[in-house]
Amino acid sequence: MEIEIGRAKRARRVYAFDDVAVVPSRRTRDPEDVSVTWSIDAYQFDIPFLAAPMDSVVSPTTAIMMGQLGGLGVLDLEGVWTRYDDPEPLLAEVRSLPADRATARMQQIYSEPIKPELVTARLAEIRAGGVTVAGALSPQRTQELYKTVVEAGVDLFVIRGTTVSAEHVSKNVEPLNLKKFIYELDVPVIVGGAATYTAALHLMRTGAAGVLVGFGGGAASTTRATLGIHAPMATAVADVAGARRDYMDESGGRYVHVIADGGLGTSGDIVKAIACGADAVMLGTALARATDAPGGGLHWGTEAYHSQLPRGNRVEVGQVAPLEEILYGPAPVAEGTANLVGALRRSMATTGYSDLKEFQRVEVVVAPYHAH
Amino acid sequence: MEIEIGRAKRARRVYAFDDVAVVPSRRTRDPEDVSVTWSIDAYQFDIPFLAAPMDSVVSPTTAIMMGQLGGLGVLDLEGVWTRYDDPEPLLAEVRSLPADRATARMQQIYSEPIKPELVTARLAEIRAGGVTVAGALSPQRTQELYKTVVEAGVDLFVIRGTTVSAEHVSKNVEPLNLKKFIYELDVPVIVGGAATYTAALHLMRTGAAGVLVGFGGGAASTTRATLGIHAPMATAVADVAGARRDYMDESGGRYVHVIADGGLGTSGDIVKAIACGADAVMLGTALARATDAPGGGLHWGTEAYHSQLPRGNRVEVGQVAPLEEILYGPAPVAEGTANLVGALRRSMATTGYSDLKEFQRVEVVVAPYHAH
Amino acid sequence: MEIEIGRAKRARRVYAFDDVAVVPSRRTRDPEDVSVTWSIDAYQFDIPFLAAPMDSVVSPTTAIMMGQLGGLGVLDLEGVWTRYDDPEPLLAEVRSLPADRATARMQQIYSEPIKPELVTARLAEIRAGGVTVAGALSPQRTQELYKTVVEAGVDLFVIRGTTVSAEHVSKNVEPLNLKKFIYELDVPVIVGGAATYTAALHLMRTGAAGVLVGFGGGAASTTRATLGIHAPMATAVADVAGARRDYMDESGGRYVHVIADGGLGTSGDIVKAIACGADAVMLGTALARATDAPGGGLHWGTEAYHSQLPRGNRVEVGQVAPLEEILYGPAPVAEGTANLVGALRRSMATTGYSDLKEFQRVEVVVAPYHAH
Amino acid sequence: MEIEIGRAKRARRVYAFDDVAVVPSRRTRDPEDVSVTWSIDAYQFDIPFLAAPMDSVVSPTTAIMMGQLGGLGVLDLEGVWTRYDDPEPLLAEVRSLPADRATARMQQIYSEPIKPELVTARLAEIRAGGVTVAGALSPQRTQELYKTVVEAGVDLFVIRGTTVSAEHVSKNVEPLNLKKFIYELDVPVIVGGAATYTAALHLMRTGAAGVLVGFGGGAASTTRATLGIHAPMATAVADVAGARRDYMDESGGRYVHVIADGGLGTSGDIVKAIACGADAVMLGTALARATDAPGGGLHWGTEAYHSQLPRGNRVEVGQVAPLEEILYGPAPVAEGTANLVGALRRSMATTGYSDLKEFQRVEVVVAPYHAH
Repeated sequence: MEIEIGRAKRARRVYAFDDVAVVPSRRTRDPEDVSVTWSIDAYQFDIPFLAAPMDSVVSPTTAIMMGQLGGLGVLDLEGVWTRYDDPEPLLAEVRSLPADRATARMQQIYSEPIKPELVTARLAEIRAGGVTVAGALSPQRTQELYKTVVEAGVDLFVIRGTTVSAEHVSKNVEPLNLKKFIYELDVPVIVGGAATYTAALHLMRTGAAGVLVGFGGGAASTTRATLGIHAPMATAVADVAGARRDYMDESGGRYVHVIADGGLGTSGDIVKAIACGADAVMLGTALARATDAPGGGLHWGTEAYHSQLPRGNRVEVGQVAPLEEILYGPAPVAEGTANLVGALRRSMATTGYSDLKEFQRVEVVVAPYHAH
Repeated sequence: MEIEIGRAKRARRVYAFDDVAVVPSRRTRDPEDVSVTWSIDAYQFDIPFLAAPMDSVVSPTTAIMMGQLGGLGVLDLEGVWTRYDDPEPLLAEVRSLPADRATARMQQIYSEPIKPELVTARLAEIRAGGVTVAGALSPQRTQELYKTVVEAGVDLFVIRGTTVSAEHVSKNVEPLNLKKFIYELDVPVIVGGAATYTAALHLMRTGAAGVLVGFGGGAASTTRATLGIHAPMATAVADVAGARRDYMDESGGRYVHVIADGGLGTSGDIVKAIACGADAVMLGTALARATDAPGGGLHWGTEAYHSQLPRGNRVEVGQVAPLEEILYGPAPVAEGTANLVGALRRSMATTGYSDLKEFQRVEVVVAPYHAH
Repeated sequence: MEIEIGRAKRARRVYAFDDVAVVPSRRTRDPEDVSVTWSIDAYQFDIPFLAAPMDSVVSPTTAIMMGQLGGLGVLDLEGVWTRYDDPEPLLAEVRSLPADRATARMQQIYSEPIKPELVTARLAEIRAGGVTVAGALSPQRTQELYKTVVEAGVDLFVIRGTTVSAEHVSKNVEPLNLKKFIYELDVPVIVGGAATYTAALHLMRTGAAGVLVGFGGGAASTTRATLGIHAPMATAVADVAGARRDYMDESGGRYVHVIADGGLGTSGDIVKAIACGADAVMLGTALARATDAPGGGLHWGTEAYHSQLPRGNRVEVGQVAPLEEILYGPAPVAEGTANLVGALRRSMATTGYSDLKEFQRVEVVVAPYHAH
Repeated sequence: MEIEIGRAKRARRVYAFDDVAVVPSRRTRDPEDVSVTWSIDAYQFDIPFLAAPMDSVVSPTTAIMMGQLGGLGVLDLEGVWTRYDDPEPLLAEVRSLPADRATARMQQIYSEPIKPELVTARLAEIRAGGVTVAGALSPQRTQELYKTVVEAGVDLFVIRGTTVSAEHVSKNVEPLNLKKFIYELDVPVIVGGAATYTAALHLMRTGAAGVLVGFGGGAASTTRATLGIHAPMATAVADVAGARRDYMDESGGRYVHVIADGGLGTSGDIVKAIACGADAVMLGTALARATDAPGGGLHWGTEAYHSQLPRGNRVEVGQVAPLEEILYGPAPVAEGTANLVGALRRSMATTGYSDLKEFQRVEVVVAPYHAH
């Protein structure tokens, strides 16, 4: 439904996860009968969860843990692990910085150059853990580093930025030609963020195996205050799921995975992402709350240490439980921050669905939160 | 009105009690002339209130009090009263637990097995009080315990779970065939929660005398955060009232009672439930505020001590007045937490209606709360 | 626009003053050129403000002050001034009661019988002040006391209750036949509260000179919590203004005044009431903030001391300025609580209108408040 | 879409900047490739920012700084700089006044008469700084002072009031005939505030070079409480942009600049103003936060010291960074209060636009803020 903002502007009403909820059907199931497996390209996962490439969430160690627990950990190949031989003291420093000095010091820490040999070493370390290996670069660095990454051996290659388009225009540098790049690469590529039907459709046409929906981070509120840009996730996921359907038709059957990335703080949000059409979810905040996450109760993304225009802060997310309990429970609390897999299973069972693809058809309602 | 969430998802706008209000008609009445009586099957009640089967609300003693005051107390047959010979010390312990240890200790307390002989004894105790006898089981336990319950003698049999469907699918256990079960039982059955037209219609077709509308508890906000499931009550009640009307037509006149269960914190909410089509209401929080309620100012449901995925907390609801004053006043305060019956009468009188069935036709408006 | 709440219930979207605002036209004026005079029956007023019949707002003294300042003070003939020879000590006591004992003690104070001779004396006192004399009774007391009131001499007779209908039904007492009553009375009658088109139309048909729109008090939020009843004022006023238009047509030209009564806390609310169609406003909270108001910074209505079902509290409204400055400024603060007349003039001037009747046509927009 | 408030009133739904957001397209760009230049009449600017004529924002010194940084500083010719030879001690006093005495003392300070020779001197001082010279008068003072202003030499003449219409009606004074005035003046005129299509269209027909959209100040919330008037900025800007388009058609191609003035607290708001159709923005609060702004962390407009009806307060806005960093960064914080130009560039780049005129076509969505 188009809305008239004023005589010279029309707009569309869009929806956040907080605006919607799922409702039961006439059937119920046992949670144990529900399947939450997910596969992309040749890789199969017990659970449809990717750990986001952020230093507060994924280290080589937690990437291995995530794989062993049935999901996929994606290492940020532009974070501390590829800039420093021993990043642990720096992570400890970031965790202990007072709030008013955090941004400035993080800008320093992340100005250290990336070392290709460390990229190689970190990926090898994950490979040695016996799990699927995935690393992420920003579009700006992909050209420079992708060969190192591919030679080091990754199973899934992630290109992740705030907004990634299939058609970047630049007067100064030759931009990455995604279509050509993906075509020539042997490794399946997951790319994003994209938040609209059109942007996602063009990314799908580049040959990507998956598209990240969102703006590559959870700092939606500060992005809105700073850039005026906002794409509420319920609408974004449902729009990109529409692009998946239309692209499947135009491509004669190629299925590109839709991965919600951002705004997924609780198990309820994960449920809604899949209900709106996501195949899997990339989790930042939700996993940064693990007692064994590298952030130690804090969480930050690249936008927090942008040199000219920081659009997020290092935030306190608290510590809830070890990663395994965050994923599989038992949940010590009732806020949807632990036993994410159990909650997803129970939600699917309560509403009568038996696998994720089916669950994308669950009935959704618009029911805004009430303040009290 | 269907809303487009995004290209691949449509949704319906739904409404909570907080979204709506009733408005006067052109006529007014005296509150004394208003009838609030309710009858289901052979049982008649002065007031359309059922006390919810929760240990913080109904003990054998309060079930008798509730009956003597004109309503119906429903005992939870899976609570402390059927697990322990003398549950009073355990209730006292739950009341005194610090918040951070409450969930864990309650999980222990409620892991004690249920004793069939205690089921028999508790129901006999209520029967001896000279009131209508009602007990509740979850769908999971109904098969195992219903014979004990029926032999002990209940007037009304309540099957209550978060979401109860007429068609539960399980690969491991033979699920309860509600239709067969109710048909063979001599006792009228009230069953729920159900929150949608279709789910309720199927429950009505099982032969139930009444359907509970809601998710079997008041922890709507944590259910939403945890499972992403939410069914605002104004829409849920009005949808199930629609199912009652359609089922009455298809069955040639069988009237199944619609009982709102959840989200009824104030007398204003009770008024709105009936205005949206409910025949009666099941009260948890509203009665847990009685100074003589077993919870002693605290309130908890089964979801608070779920072993793997607690979806609610033991909450402080405060103590307002004795049960009799909660129901019949005088009200010491103006927040709609006491003199529930007087408020219902006055609301009906002010808007010009003389009995509950008529009042289901009162005009309702959509008028969201303002924060200030 | 009708909204489906659920299958068995439809509702209309209604609006509060907080939901709306007025907007300028293409013309502006000087505030000094704007007229805010109002006349009803034979009585003319410099300003369209009635002081509400509440003990915290109107005493005989403030009724005279209000008249001298160009408005109309309405004395509550069922308040302390007609129950006690010397009510000042009781008013002082109410002002000093701790919050937790206020309701109980006020219930006692207001259980003292009304003395007809005091009704006579108080009205004579106001008459002696040389201003228009107005007194208010509830519908319940009108039969019993109206002769005393009329003989004492009032210019305008106000019948004010939470909800007053032209058709009150009672099995126990012969209700007041408003139509007959007003027909036989020589004094013009203002009657309400009414909040809907139909209720107001029927009140107009009784011969009333004016209709009060609202629920006879400002405790809208507690009425909503307690009774589930709510009639947001922007819609209520616009609906009753519609009844005025239609009744003028059916009666061949009788103009019944629409007086907004409730929810008028700021000059902005007064502006919106007239913009929605009100001819005048009855002010409670706004005038209780006068340093010379009897409430001394506190404010209470009959609903605060209802014996069985109090639906409001004695509330702290603070003290802003003397009554004269509340009405005519200068305003020491910028919150719309002082210089109410100046603000009304300026708003009319800024939007280009020159009298109240014209200003009822000003453009209104729906623009909900934002929390931050 | 017209909404029925009630039977006698209809209204239009309008939108604030907080209600909307911009969304990316399928293309992205480098921020360096984006142009944010703006020109009006013969004057060209690196950035589309005007500093508002308020004593807390613009002194002769900051007007020069603003010009040197690529924007335009507009001096209030009715502020302290034209009333006092040496206003610095008075500015210092306003900054140090306790809140409860601020309004009264400011009313005194601003009652000092304006000295024409100081108008001349201040404008000469700015001219000597080598930047574009702009000064503002209220409509009330324009007749009296414009000759002084023009003779002193201004490049752009600003007439700014709360609501300025092309057709002011007064019984006492001969109002300013804007059309005649502008026609006879050699200097281009920017005039406002106007908040509706019709009011703006009439202002455009007077020959103005630019129209200020808004109510001449940021105190929207107190104006709403006091006067009931509110014109949310997203709708206001889009409506006036519609007037620009229609006037261009009727005038055979004259392009009148639309300048958003009010409600622009963050870089995100600036982005949205242009997205809704603004050519430039006039900034108050956003620049009052500069450590070198005259307000020293406080901010006030004429409405704060109105003698009879103050409709705003002297507010604390805090100090973020020097003016240069407020405009060009780096941003020490992530709230959209610094690096305004960088944020605008990045937003345009992220959404794929290369100049301001193009960016007025960016897709906008309606996405209300969520409280948590």
